[in-house]
Amino acid sequence: MDRSALNDMTYGLFVLGAMDGARPVGCVVNTVVQLTSEPVTVGVSVNHNNYTNECIKKTGLFSVSILSEEVPMETIAAFGFQSGRNTDKFAGMKSRMKQPGVPVLSENICGTLVCRVVESMELSTHTLFIAEVMDAERAKVPLPPLTYAYYLKVKNGTVPKNAPTYIPSEKKEHYDCSVCGFRYDDGEGPLEFLPAGWTCPRCGSPKDAMEKGT
Amino acid sequence: MDRSALNDMTYGLFVLGAMDGARPVGCVVNTVVQLTSEPVTVGVSVNHNNYTNECIKKTGLFSVSILSEEVPMETIAAFGFQSGRNTDKFAGMKSRMKQPGVPVLSENICGTLVCRVVESMELSTHTLFIAEVMDAERAKVPLPPLTYAYYLKVKNGTVPKNAPTYIPSEKKEHYDCSVCGFRYDDGEGPLEFLPAGWTCPRCGSPKDAMEKGT
Repeated sequence: MDRSALNDMTYGLFVLGAMDGARPVGCVVNTVVQLTSEPVTVGVSVNHNNYTNECIKKTGLFSVSILSEEVPMETIAAFGFQSGRNTDKFAGMKSRMKQPGVPVLSENICGTLVCRVVESMELSTHTLFIAEVMDAERAKVPLPPLTYAYYLKVKNGTVPKNAPTYIPSEKKEHYDCSVCGFRYDDGEGPLEFLPAGWTCPRCGSPKDAMEKGT
Repeated sequence: MDRSALNDMTYGLFVLGAMDGARPVGCVVNTVVQLTSEPVTVGVSVNHNNYTNECIKKTGLFSVSILSEEVPMETIAAFGFQSGRNTDKFAGMKSRMKQPGVPVLSENICGTLVCRVVESMELSTHTLFIAEVMDAERAKVPLPPLTYAYYLKVKNGTVPKNAPTYIPSEKKEHYDCSVCGFRYDDGEGPLEFLPAGWTCPRCGSPKDAMEKGT
């Protein structure tokens, strides 16, 4: 089986938004697809390890911000390569709330959806949510949608460990903290995409203290 | 709700293949997505009206041919705009069988998958099949995958009534048979995409007898 054949499947890139109580959370996914047109339903596969998954299960609500090609890599990194369990991913982003209470991005997007979960299915590593689209809004200025291929080829993006398209056998780079020896696995996303304020989770040293491992 | 926002979601285009006894059947879909990486599973939404849906349910097997940009519109028309109930859609196509017995296209594709259904979910108009990928093969010559956006914008493709992305309120053109008055609804696909041998289902007149309605 040549798993690389799966790389030719086409996807967009999206930020899912949900609420953890009064706190907005979110993550990047590539798997939002329309499933039916009457009523309008979409499906999305979200990794069990994603904090957003838990929050969607609790509230039954999520938003989809359809990313445009112009979206900065920092936005994708903020939503895709850190956990919302202890980080406010929407901090510093231009965002707003949509009825009945889900956060969406308000720049570098083609449009947004507000979705209510109607069914879900537990798969090996992901939950597949089926949701009815309660509201859909298109950006005032039409922008080209960001495709996964464009993200990988033009923006030189990488595939995080939680993505369904992640290839486990792929050799990953790692970094070691020069202060405490903590190993950062590149499978979580390249070190340079981590936000400027990121610190070693073990000793608190700044990002500069991380050295490429061999 | 502005349904046009859903148009900015990105998809590929695929031919699903399945068996109806000893006869190959197939249809065009835009909704194949990878759902998990361990094991490799994919999801696909197939309209209840699609004959391929029935055949997949009976056999639990289907193939995915990932279409490339070079694929002629006639191929898409043959698989997308007629029913396999009484037509051999693979006739005249370069195709082959893959183990354990599913038909795939063998030209104008990026690669193929062989899939075994592990779960399915009935939605309003579509069945969502969840399937384990048993085999994946990439074309020897890398080709750019056909995206749904490229199909619509560059190839001037239309959205058939059975697609999840079909917008029911959209005004469709129609054609009337000049011999018997049979009305052909463009929602099934534009008349020019129908194969050369297509005849009026009521009186058997050739395609030339159809006149654009007002």
